[in-house]
Amino acid sequence: MNVILLSGGSGKRLWPLSNDIRSKQFIKFFKKPDGAELTDSESDSGYESMVQRVYRQLKAVDPNCMITVATSKSQVSTIHNQLGEDVGISVEPCRRDTFPAIALATAYLHDVQGVSEDEAVVVCPVDPYVNDDYFEAVRRLWELAGSGEANLVLMGIKPTYPSEKYGYIIPTDTAEVSRVSMFKEKPDMPNAWQYIDRGGMWNGGVFAYKISYVLDRAHELIDFADYAELFAKYDTLENISFDYAVAERESDIAVLRFNGEWKDMGTWNTLTEAMEENAVGDVRFSEDCKNVHAINELGIPILAVGLRDVVISASPEGILVSDKEQSSHIKPYVDAIDNQVMFAEKSWGNFQVLDIEEDSMTVKVTLRSGHCMNYHSHEKRDEVWTVVSGSGRTIVDGMEQPVSAGDVIAMAAGCKHTVIADTELQLIEVQLGSEISVKDKHKYELEL
Amino acid sequence: MNVILLSGGSGKRLWPLSNDIRSKQFIKFFKKPDGAELTDSESDSGYESMVQRVYRQLKAVDPNCMITVATSKSQVSTIHNQLGEDVGISVEPCRRDTFPAIALATAYLHDVQGVSEDEAVVVCPVDPYVNDDYFEAVRRLWELAGSGEANLVLMGIKPTYPSEKYGYIIPTDTAEVSRVSMFKEKPDMPNAWQYIDRGGMWNGGVFAYKISYVLDRAHELIDFADYAELFAKYDTLENISFDYAVAERESDIAVLRFNGEWKDMGTWNTLTEAMEENAVGDVRFSEDCKNVHAINELGIPILAVGLRDVVISASPEGILVSDKEQSSHIKPYVDAIDNQVMFAEKSWGNFQVLDIEEDSMTVKVTLRSGHCMNYHSHEKRDEVWTVVSGSGRTIVDGMEQPVSAGDVIAMAAGCKHTVIADTELQLIEVQLGSEISVKDKHKYELEL
Repeated sequence: MNVILLSGGSGKRLWPLSNDIRSKQFIKFFKKPDGAELTDSESDSGYESMVQRVYRQLKAVDPNCMITVATSKSQVSTIHNQLGEDVGISVEPCRRDTFPAIALATAYLHDVQGVSEDEAVVVCPVDPYVNDDYFEAVRRLWELAGSGEANLVLMGIKPTYPSEKYGYIIPTDTAEVSRVSMFKEKPDMPNAWQYIDRGGMWNGGVFAYKISYVLDRAHELIDFADYAELFAKYDTLENISFDYAVAERESDIAVLRFNGEWKDMGTWNTLTEAMEENAVGDVRFSEDCKNVHAINELGIPILAVGLRDVVISASPEGILVSDKEQSSHIKPYVDAIDNQVMFAEKSWGNFQVLDIEEDSMTVKVTLRSGHCMNYHSHEKRDEVWTVVSGSGRTIVDGMEQPVSAGDVIAMAAGCKHTVIADTELQLIEVQLGSEISVKDKHKYELEL
Repeated sequence: MNVILLSGGSGKRLWPLSNDIRSKQFIKFFKKPDGAELTDSESDSGYESMVQRVYRQLKAVDPNCMITVATSKSQVSTIHNQLGEDVGISVEPCRRDTFPAIALATAYLHDVQGVSEDEAVVVCPVDPYVNDDYFEAVRRLWELAGSGEANLVLMGIKPTYPSEKYGYIIPTDTAEVSRVSMFKEKPDMPNAWQYIDRGGMWNGGVFAYKISYVLDRAHELIDFADYAELFAKYDTLENISFDYAVAERESDIAVLRFNGEWKDMGTWNTLTEAMEENAVGDVRFSEDCKNVHAINELGIPILAVGLRDVVISASPEGILVSDKEQSSHIKPYVDAIDNQVMFAEKSWGNFQVLDIEEDSMTVKVTLRSGHCMNYHSHEKRDEVWTVVSGSGRTIVDGMEQPVSAGDVIAMAAGCKHTVIADTELQLIEVQLGSEISVKDKHKYELEL
């Protein structure tokens, strides 16, 4: 089976755990089942992220499943950290809507991965919280598209209530696989009831097609020869959704009815419903707390007393305390927060801002074994590294030197520097200067 | 007027802002009134603590008021930081109940401060939240005791509801100043109603007496010649309350009726009632938050959404989110938290733990201008200082050296070290070792 996982943008609806450079799909909320295979190269925390969970579930249904993640450049290192090096990644050079993203990923499958035009592929979002039966339905979708059932085969999710926030697929009949009569976006309550009466299903954004089908549509709308050319001109493409560009114009379209459990995890409210445990991290609840969830990524305890229907989430970015029902409305408040990025995963490890003063900033840097940061310099700040664990080598203005816990490296502004981790290595970096900025960074090729 | 302020123990009922070494009375919750004189030697934050507020209010009623704080050794430096050097302090060598503490402070007033036996003194707790009329009543109490109205003159607070958690003073009549008929501790609701019907008042723990009166009682119960001797044998004294040892045995006792506003601030619920603003620190509320208070001492924002009757409090010790009514029940949960002290005020400034790893700890140290830490060494850890602001001098194994922002000092285990701040000075201290403990510290005399 070929699968394109759409790993979308950052989003602030799960602030403070998601930020401009960390997205909800990478946060480890979910208790791993016993015996689950490790997919990440990090040490095993006992928890997995949305993208790790979906990846694991797909591999359980089809161990040979070829998974390609369609995503932005900023997520590439995190995806490799969490899923390993085997996963395919279709990198979007800039943010566009779903049609360009799916066209690019499809061209990548064909031109880079060598998948035949006749093979089918299933597109899945990365953020539903579902069981294995959902992935059985995903495979069924792939088979239906491969056997020519229709040009486009969608998954329809049997509604559990007349939601006003989902799109509906209205079928021509109530068979398990039927033709699609029409699409309806986010109806009001009476219309939602009516669609359900007619056998309408939620559109979960899962669909299958043959590679040739989407390549043909793409060539109709975009002038390009192959993947390389499409990639090169990606920033010139129109911002247009797959639904609008393809699905709504297609007449040969079928829907597979899925009756199993399905939760989307776009808000704290729906996400916490999917958590098996009420707490992740150091959290204590009084006995009278009811329906309270807390996720704590800080090194200090959270104590929740006498609360009901509340979500608490703490990260180096900030602390959210929200009524669950109201948690879908946090975005405007989060937008108003001036968001200094306090934590980020990088290809080489991660960093966490510990302290900010007027003329200094203190950061904890963790490098994964065998990795190094870019060789770089800063114009307007000095830096001091104190290695606190592990061993490796620093290169400062071309001079290589072994370092281990206790070593101190002072670097004046302008000097080129990097550190190579021979084991996992942690250091405390003190930045000193009156104009400390992430933009003050010049990268160099490392000449070894 | 002579006043003894009882500045009691640490208490965990206002966790995470109070801890084993920082007590609620030193936390700056309260917006300073415009034009209020600065009593502390720190920079002006616009907020004042309970002890600063009471001190300011006493000085407003009587600018010549002689104030002595009865407290433990661990609070001395914080009291000087907040109230300056002029305040008298009666240091309790160890923790005992109120009778030994008041006897010691009274002997201190007489023997150290030279207050005459015939003068009166008023004892006040440090934690009621009250207006100036309360301090007018305090002065009245002092005058009544000085004029020989009774051996002991208490303040009775007119109850606003039949509380079950306060002690009651039952007078013989309803005059403004009357004799005391009896004391009743924490009655049930029907009895509380009955006491109020009889003109009963809450016992706010404020009382006045002549110095000679308490010294006489003390000599009856304890064998001592003067303050120095009482101080020296303090740890051998019986743990006994002033109420039990003195008030309940005294027949010549009067009560002054106080009709003004009075709030004790023992729990988050009562404390937040006294806050003029809903937030201290970086806090954002959604518009539908009702009766929510938040105090944020962390460098990251708190966002509260859709909450009602909740208090949020965040410090380097931890994060509390509690229903206000339930906030008086946090103690057992706080007791269960293994409390590494993450922040402390010292005579020379303060420190804040930024990060704890298995074999390292990162601390931000702030020294006040003109101060220095003890000259000391550690057996089992190395330390690295990076000065991030200010200037001063380090002394390492006897060698003095000027330092300023950007300087790095590496100190191996065993070496003696200190830093002297010539301006306010901040440094990041990285501690390295497998057995990092606050107990691993040897102090030395500084030989300059």
